[in-house]
Amino acid sequence: MAKKNAFYAQSGGVTAVINASACGVIETLRQHPEAFGTLYAGHNGILGALTEELIDTSVLSEAQVAALKHTPGGAFGSCRYKLKDIETHQAQYERLIEVFRAHDIGYFFYNGGGDSADTCLKVAQISEKMGYPIQAIHIPKTVDNDLPITDNCPGFGSVAKYIAISTREAALDIASMCATSTKVFILEVMGRHAGWIAAAGGLAGQEEGDAPHLIIFPEVPFEREKVMARVDECVKNYGYCVIVVSEGARYADGTFLADAGTTDAFGHKQLGGVAPTLAGMVKQDLGYKYHWAVADYLQRAARHIASATDVEQAYAVGQAGVELALEGKHSVMPAIIRESNHPYRWHIEQASLADVANVEKFMPRDFISMDGLNITDTCRAYLEPLIQGEDLPPFSKGLPQYIQLEYTFAPRLLAEFTP
Amino acid sequence: MAKKNAFYAQSGGVTAVINASACGVIETLRQHPEAFGTLYAGHNGILGALTEELIDTSVLSEAQVAALKHTPGGAFGSCRYKLKDIETHQAQYERLIEVFRAHDIGYFFYNGGGDSADTCLKVAQISEKMGYPIQAIHIPKTVDNDLPITDNCPGFGSVAKYIAISTREAALDIASMCATSTKVFILEVMGRHAGWIAAAGGLAGQEEGDAPHLIIFPEVPFEREKVMARVDECVKNYGYCVIVVSEGARYADGTFLADAGTTDAFGHKQLGGVAPTLAGMVKQDLGYKYHWAVADYLQRAARHIASATDVEQAYAVGQAGVELALEGKHSVMPAIIRESNHPYRWHIEQASLADVANVEKFMPRDFISMDGLNITDTCRAYLEPLIQGEDLPPFSKGLPQYIQLEYTFAPRLLAEFTP
Repeated sequence: MAKKNAFYAQSGGVTAVINASACGVIETLRQHPEAFGTLYAGHNGILGALTEELIDTSVLSEAQVAALKHTPGGAFGSCRYKLKDIETHQAQYERLIEVFRAHDIGYFFYNGGGDSADTCLKVAQISEKMGYPIQAIHIPKTVDNDLPITDNCPGFGSVAKYIAISTREAALDIASMCATSTKVFILEVMGRHAGWIAAAGGLAGQEEGDAPHLIIFPEVPFEREKVMARVDECVKNYGYCVIVVSEGARYADGTFLADAGTTDAFGHKQLGGVAPTLAGMVKQDLGYKYHWAVADYLQRAARHIASATDVEQAYAVGQAGVELALEGKHSVMPAIIRESNHPYRWHIEQASLADVANVEKFMPRDFISMDGLNITDTCRAYLEPLIQGEDLPPFSKGLPQYIQLEYTFAPRLLAEFTP
Repeated sequence: MAKKNAFYAQSGGVTAVINASACGVIETLRQHPEAFGTLYAGHNGILGALTEELIDTSVLSEAQVAALKHTPGGAFGSCRYKLKDIETHQAQYERLIEVFRAHDIGYFFYNGGGDSADTCLKVAQISEKMGYPIQAIHIPKTVDNDLPITDNCPGFGSVAKYIAISTREAALDIASMCATSTKVFILEVMGRHAGWIAAAGGLAGQEEGDAPHLIIFPEVPFEREKVMARVDECVKNYGYCVIVVSEGARYADGTFLADAGTTDAFGHKQLGGVAPTLAGMVKQDLGYKYHWAVADYLQRAARHIASATDVEQAYAVGQAGVELALEGKHSVMPAIIRESNHPYRWHIEQASLADVANVEKFMPRDFISMDGLNITDTCRAYLEPLIQGEDLPPFSKGLPQYIQLEYTFAPRLLAEFTP
């Protein structure tokens, strides 16, 4: 088989380590010049393929590629853009194949979450249908940790570490001030559907009474009275209460707390997230002084304190993706398989994309305590290995040195296309 | 002079490094058994002196004391409690002196910000008036960096480093997503009166066009039209816009943005901070997709990425406070004096508390750019040395190992007192 060029793209919300996967792909690919031609990266994810904005990675120096491993964000640009239904929007898929054909691309590496796995699968299907062979390989990434089959998702370990550390640190602050000041602290974390990140906050505590005292999961319907009673109990027992709340916290009827129909003076839907909403309840029901924080992008960009395990796994799935391609595989995803907790051992196996696409993995019920407001030891045993090790980026002048690539684009060969 | 016992207390909002000052005090004091007896720490700051809750630090092991240097929060408890006017509340001051007399305390080390400097001065005055000599020494601490005379305040360098890093990291996230998703990101930081912390966000950028594109200071009256025009310009030029905003951002009439009279559906004052308020303006005036983060306590507790310079200075002012006491000084504060920027050199001198108490240091006008929306090179030259170096705490199981002290209290010798 004549050697083909390859395409790599980043998809969906970026993470502290998605570029480590890119690094794994590029470095491994470069070790096999007999099999692979040029690697093009899509500018802004799959959009770059549709618009024929292909970043030529062959011009990147070894040092630039290596620097990707410690740089957060998406170095080639990512996108929130889901390919539409293949039946009604066949033109989009055909355009993809045209671009791939024009640039002699035979490998499609797609680095993303659940939606991207679906896109990746569709690309495999359309390539078969159109008689232009593409080996489509999905490289897992998501802070939400909600992909099936793989034991965990690259990107999650680092956000978990950041949230656990932040919870522990903020708790020491509140503990020292609670006698005369703030009694309730609320940290809002990501996770609209699954409570994995909120659960990671639970790692901050080690003993009975340690913060966080409550974790509010999307998986557990929110009961205001029960939660407020528990908050009150913590303030009375420990002097203060720390709550980690998932942005996806919701009532039994599915309404998000952060979107509970309240409007501001101008009639706009309340802008605040779930943390200020919950803070309002604390004030109204209990009258305690509160503070709240919303970590937002800070949590998923916090490469400065990334989990070394996460960085290693992110790189490994990139590397494994290329190795699967070498073996002639397609419509697969490298999945992380846990072998043991003590010591933590894992390896990579291939998963079929058909089993991955459009399946969301929620927190198992036995990861959540009986009262629905904390994590269990089973959950802790699952989470702990994922935050092991500190992998600091290089620092200069007190700040992490992250790389920002200047792009060299492949020449355009096709007419313009509006996605 | 017979040797006397000493009292140390933490006051006001805690920081990532206030315990490093405590460590400096304790370790230095222990080196001079000829001069000092037992060091008692006030439980919850000055309240501990009033209520006679004196933590006996002599039982702490060397390792415990050393661990304070890398532990955020206030290890002995702090408080938001300002001693009232000396004329009308003389009983409070007399009680302090009674407690000090009962426990043979001759040294008063008070670790705090501007309000605490005032309290420290008052304690010196009352001790003189009551004929019970106390050497009152103020040890500077405040993330707000607003004490006079000292070039900077321990606690600030670490929050500055955290905010600069977080801004740089979040900016990479937004830059990679802006083509199809978030275009405006707003990070709210502390600083109700002075914009020092917001200014530190400016260190994230190095070149024209780098984030943060706008910094909103409390010192510069907020003009909605001007700010929104600049946001729009950034989105059009760079594809996205990152804003660092001080919680103290206000209109020309002094009204805080975060407290602009808006109420929620229940008629309560809007709970949100300035970040969601500003986000609402972006949505209303420009229609761009936004995200916002409120770092809150996370920023001042972030010991995991503390500035090594800050840790060193926090320890040094604790040490210097004890040395000043040895020299027989009172009503003074060790101040950090900058000698040069390249290389960064500093030393400690004594400042008179009379010159420190109740004076707030704002950002000099030449630290803020002409348009009022960013920092100048002069400001950058001032800030850069303060965030130098990474001083990581020890980690175990992926998390920083912070110490939580168990307190041994000195026996009570006096009747109860309700402050």
